[in-house]
Amino acid sequence: MTQIAHAAVLESFNAPLAMRTYPLPDQVEPGAALVKTELAGICGTDVHLWKGQLPIGLPVILGHETVGTIVELGAGLETDWSGKPLKVGNRVTWNSTTSCGRCYYCAEKRQPTRCPERRAYGIGYRCDQPPHFLGGYAEYHYLRPRTHIFKIPPDLPAESVIGAGCALITAIHGVERTGIAWGDNVVVQGSGPVGIAGLAVARSAGAGRVILIGGQEHRLKIASEFGADHALDIAQLPSSADRIAAVRELTGGYGADVVLECVGIPNAVVEGMEMCRDGGKYLILGHYCDAGPVAWNPQVVTRKQLQVFGSWSSEPRHLKAALEFLRANQTRFPFARMLTHRFSLHQADEALRTTAEWQSAKSVIMPG
Amino acid sequence: MTQIAHAAVLESFNAPLAMRTYPLPDQVEPGAALVKTELAGICGTDVHLWKGQLPIGLPVILGHETVGTIVELGAGLETDWSGKPLKVGNRVTWNSTTSCGRCYYCAEKRQPTRCPERRAYGIGYRCDQPPHFLGGYAEYHYLRPRTHIFKIPPDLPAESVIGAGCALITAIHGVERTGIAWGDNVVVQGSGPVGIAGLAVARSAGAGRVILIGGQEHRLKIASEFGADHALDIAQLPSSADRIAAVRELTGGYGADVVLECVGIPNAVVEGMEMCRDGGKYLILGHYCDAGPVAWNPQVVTRKQLQVFGSWSSEPRHLKAALEFLRANQTRFPFARMLTHRFSLHQADEALRTTAEWQSAKSVIMPG
Amino acid sequence: MTQIAHAAVLESFNAPLAMRTYPLPDQVEPGAALVKTELAGICGTDVHLWKGQLPIGLPVILGHETVGTIVELGAGLETDWSGKPLKVGNRVTWNSTTSCGRCYYCAEKRQPTRCPERRAYGIGYRCDQPPHFLGGYAEYHYLRPRTHIFKIPPDLPAESVIGAGCALITAIHGVERTGIAWGDNVVVQGSGPVGIAGLAVARSAGAGRVILIGGQEHRLKIASEFGADHALDIAQLPSSADRIAAVRELTGGYGADVVLECVGIPNAVVEGMEMCRDGGKYLILGHYCDAGPVAWNPQVVTRKQLQVFGSWSSEPRHLKAALEFLRANQTRFPFARMLTHRFSLHQADEALRTTAEWQSAKSVIMPG
Amino acid sequence: MTQIAHAAVLESFNAPLAMRTYPLPDQVEPGAALVKTELAGICGTDVHLWKGQLPIGLPVILGHETVGTIVELGAGLETDWSGKPLKVGNRVTWNSTTSCGRCYYCAEKRQPTRCPERRAYGIGYRCDQPPHFLGGYAEYHYLRPRTHIFKIPPDLPAESVIGAGCALITAIHGVERTGIAWGDNVVVQGSGPVGIAGLAVARSAGAGRVILIGGQEHRLKIASEFGADHALDIAQLPSSADRIAAVRELTGGYGADVVLECVGIPNAVVEGMEMCRDGGKYLILGHYCDAGPVAWNPQVVTRKQLQVFGSWSSEPRHLKAALEFLRANQTRFPFARMLTHRFSLHQADEALRTTAEWQSAKSVIMPG
Repeated sequence: MTQIAHAAVLESFNAPLAMRTYPLPDQVEPGAALVKTELAGICGTDVHLWKGQLPIGLPVILGHETVGTIVELGAGLETDWSGKPLKVGNRVTWNSTTSCGRCYYCAEKRQPTRCPERRAYGIGYRCDQPPHFLGGYAEYHYLRPRTHIFKIPPDLPAESVIGAGCALITAIHGVERTGIAWGDNVVVQGSGPVGIAGLAVARSAGAGRVILIGGQEHRLKIASEFGADHALDIAQLPSSADRIAAVRELTGGYGADVVLECVGIPNAVVEGMEMCRDGGKYLILGHYCDAGPVAWNPQVVTRKQLQVFGSWSSEPRHLKAALEFLRANQTRFPFARMLTHRFSLHQADEALRTTAEWQSAKSVIMPG
Repeated sequence: MTQIAHAAVLESFNAPLAMRTYPLPDQVEPGAALVKTELAGICGTDVHLWKGQLPIGLPVILGHETVGTIVELGAGLETDWSGKPLKVGNRVTWNSTTSCGRCYYCAEKRQPTRCPERRAYGIGYRCDQPPHFLGGYAEYHYLRPRTHIFKIPPDLPAESVIGAGCALITAIHGVERTGIAWGDNVVVQGSGPVGIAGLAVARSAGAGRVILIGGQEHRLKIASEFGADHALDIAQLPSSADRIAAVRELTGGYGADVVLECVGIPNAVVEGMEMCRDGGKYLILGHYCDAGPVAWNPQVVTRKQLQVFGSWSSEPRHLKAALEFLRANQTRFPFARMLTHRFSLHQADEALRTTAEWQSAKSVIMPG
Repeated sequence: MTQIAHAAVLESFNAPLAMRTYPLPDQVEPGAALVKTELAGICGTDVHLWKGQLPIGLPVILGHETVGTIVELGAGLETDWSGKPLKVGNRVTWNSTTSCGRCYYCAEKRQPTRCPERRAYGIGYRCDQPPHFLGGYAEYHYLRPRTHIFKIPPDLPAESVIGAGCALITAIHGVERTGIAWGDNVVVQGSGPVGIAGLAVARSAGAGRVILIGGQEHRLKIASEFGADHALDIAQLPSSADRIAAVRELTGGYGADVVLECVGIPNAVVEGMEMCRDGGKYLILGHYCDAGPVAWNPQVVTRKQLQVFGSWSSEPRHLKAALEFLRANQTRFPFARMLTHRFSLHQADEALRTTAEWQSAKSVIMPG
Repeated sequence: MTQIAHAAVLESFNAPLAMRTYPLPDQVEPGAALVKTELAGICGTDVHLWKGQLPIGLPVILGHETVGTIVELGAGLETDWSGKPLKVGNRVTWNSTTSCGRCYYCAEKRQPTRCPERRAYGIGYRCDQPPHFLGGYAEYHYLRPRTHIFKIPPDLPAESVIGAGCALITAIHGVERTGIAWGDNVVVQGSGPVGIAGLAVARSAGAGRVILIGGQEHRLKIASEFGADHALDIAQLPSSADRIAAVRELTGGYGADVVLECVGIPNAVVEGMEMCRDGGKYLILGHYCDAGPVAWNPQVVTRKQLQVFGSWSSEPRHLKAALEFLRANQTRFPFARMLTHRFSLHQADEALRTTAEWQSAKSVIMPG
């Protein structure tokens, strides 16, 4: 007899999520798995999706940051991405997308995050067709064949994994592409999840002084706990010129060696380049969504002899590294504490609103 | 008895250059030299200076691309920058600027082109004070102590050195900062001296296919002679969308691995980033002058996972490499042929006009 | 009715190859292909294999550098590695090995040439079991599923592909790992196929002066044709000290920026490091086989502040780049001319001997 | 009236240091300074010098790790290397060597540590000629013009500076040249000052797991305090095979991403390369002295596709970074605790012996 399960479904943009039921698959195909959802993180991108700012098909079960327990394994799926044996009952997480491994971007240019075949759980799959459960805001999650699955070490709480969320792997990839040299002074623009994750990665990647610029007292407090030497409040520095001046003052008058943009507002990019020292590096990390154009003078790149980097999403090896990093640094970087707001599946819509309204550091749904 | 010599002097912006005489120094100070000018190149920057688009003090003798013969050597100046013995009668060229070697940018960050003490011959020195002769449009040129002087090999014509001009060393530095991998497809935006130099450096640095996009038939012909696989005429591709489409078609639909901006128009930057494949590299090289802002969407850098580089001026080691490159490649890259228009010192104003009006590939003054 | 075909088989080390027949597969499995061999190159490694210097199982059909024509395509094999449509009658070549794409080395560390699942055609497959034809010295070659196949452009002769052989892709990978900066002075140790290929790659990758040191007049003549500035004959420079002194003299007394070892004799490594300038780079490329230890003082790496690189085999993207390079540079780097000795399949043993005795620049078998 | 001061002098190799007096300079030349020595560290190199293992002229005042207080400033010496104002009474340290800034290695190849004009305090200056005081084991130290002087921040004890000694700047330079990626597993071979410093730099540069292999319980205890995940005792792992096996077991069977050699024994290099994963990095850092050759098979570099780096001494920017690092990390990396043995100037010979006999973590002379 077919089992059914609940999901919170985005059926039309800017409207409340609807509770729906779908049948679970009778059988899991070879290489696939069925997972009982334990925690589903709410990412800022979910808010953009809900507002219709990205071109997706509806209805969709949102949620691309998920931890769950394996309840069924398809034939041939015997190990996780790292080669560790996989069994029913294991607690796992996974990359929200899978690259093809064979195309121009995957095989020739080694930029698998730009593979045209990528399609993300919680974003790119309609839920009105089987296997339905391809997003985190649901009691179950179906993992298609070739999904990059990772067993979570027993001494790593699910709260840490979801507290870090996709922000951490995004930041790991971005900092890898940018390169932080030992002793570099680093500025992080933004105190949202990506900013906090960028701070943690920069701090642990050898940065000398780390200056975070952001808003909201509870987030700046977390920044200090995570080792920011300075957590500057934009409420105290309302003008762009003031913020640039503050960075310069804290960096010997020159600007920072590396600036990480984790904001997503185009003007932050114009401002941030002026926070770099000449010859410095600038990472545009917060622009997953299209926030439109800004008036920008490209001469700044020539005159200041900058290096500017972009980074899109992340690869499975970043998730592997993230889990090991979270496990080893629970005291130093307590990502679990980011989970300030918890909700049941029936409260999914409310959960999304706390994120949209920036009330939470991180909201999470516990469907179980 | 003090000797006098002639110079073409910029006394007010947008006005004709004036022929003036100044006394030559009675004595050359230790470490300095006096040079009789053989050839003085006219750079596009000179046009910007003449138009008052850069903040300089007047009066000034323009000209920062110069070849001459040593007529007097100050005490202690016994070798050129490479350590080769220097004598009266040697044919030499030199960097237009000198970095201090001790400051934050020179010594700590190894970005000597951003040294605040830099001041360029032909740009940054007023000529109404001794030693007067600190620019190329004159019969003599005074080389201050610590100027980076290079002997020109006997088998390298002065025409090659000036045909390449500061465009070549600018391009060498820019390509060094960007990195072209063996086999990379490269687009060069612009067919002016920097574009042609960028083409030569890219071509010889291991590029696979090189596509130059520019204007004016005589320049595109030079591009083909310098080994461009394709020299696209903007007159045939008047819209930005057409040019982007043309590049994509020539690069398997993906865009180029590396794009070199050698234009100086802000919109070229917006267009050029779309010519990059995802994960590609973009060099903003043509923006020595401030040409104002442009509407630009920074998301392109994230979404396409780009690397964007800036490069300012050049270091002495680039001039050393340039001279060796010119010497070894006179057939493959005939920079001497760039010198399409020659003028006497008294025609300096006319020379500047041919450059301002894009009539010449390269104009040169022969003060001798 | 099952068809049979001929192969030259290595049945015991140091003994003549035997002509054998095996049945061709009745059917080509999905994703696989059957190819009629056009040209099979003889690589120096084949000599090592024949001598029993590498641990392989016998009997084996040697030959890992092969060009052929597709006679049958398995189901689902519709494009080559680059995505170009594949049809019966197409002329193709392929990588001799395939990495798994999923393991620690493939997916996490991006070192696919160190994938433990790699197994090479012409080396790692016994031929006494179906599909038998897994090496080049035979009338047919079976391409297993997942083989990286490349269509050869119509304007690229098979002779160029085999003249370059696996030496070229090995050199491309090695130079990629090492990095040659524009203008670098490069020394190539060795005038065998890897040395000549290293020269071609270095020359086209932006090297300034290139000095090749090797033996045999006909090889040094090829080196000069391929653009070596100096082709030094070890017969004229019999001592290590002399060769080091010669390199220093040609590089301003300092040594080369980059030295490529393409010899395979341990002492060449000791000698070659002394040919580097301080802070220079050294690539150990010629040591595919274990030639035993040498007395070496590791302080040289500290004292001279060297960077030493190793490179093993190559990836499919290198073969793609090689084919494009060969196509575009047939005049500048005439690899087809390397094919000095041609043999029928029945003369395979003789062909191997000309390579073993260094009589040929490159020997090739034409089984058709 | 000329003042005299004491120094401990190496007059013949392997013999006790002699206490001597020399006149202090009557006047400090322009750009120079006279310093009253506060602490003089004893470096392992001093032991090699004392044994005559490096070619130096005698007599010499040993000591190239020194902190002191300025007692006299020559004309024109107004700022330290970082541009901070310098006054009599300031506590300072300095680089033991100065590069010329103009030569092939300094200016063209940016390898200033290989400048041929370098000559080190405490090593390369005879003390029987004025200004005599050019080494640390003395009451005063003369700083010649162009010495790179650094003011020590008020909140940084001299003990931290000397506890770190030249080992720290050596390690900073070495790790900079090698590059440690965020999350890399690192092995440090050696528990002497360079090994402990390498551990601190690797740990703070983003390493994941750090494994130190060394000897002597008190040093391994320091290693653990400095954050080593594993401090393996060579007494427990007497064979090379055992140590390699231990590293592999702690790194998933593959070996480490980066291995830092901080031992100075040639065989450690052979062993250490086997501790690298394929495609990994190996830094030869401990071979400041020539410890002779070892039997080594260069194929390991090809087969394992290694990158091997050397690093010689350090640059002033490394000392600047070291002081900032020490200041900011006194709790995390308590280098001051390395100072296990303190001696008066008259006990200099005894101090040297405790280092030679590996009794101390770090010995120091307090001449004041």
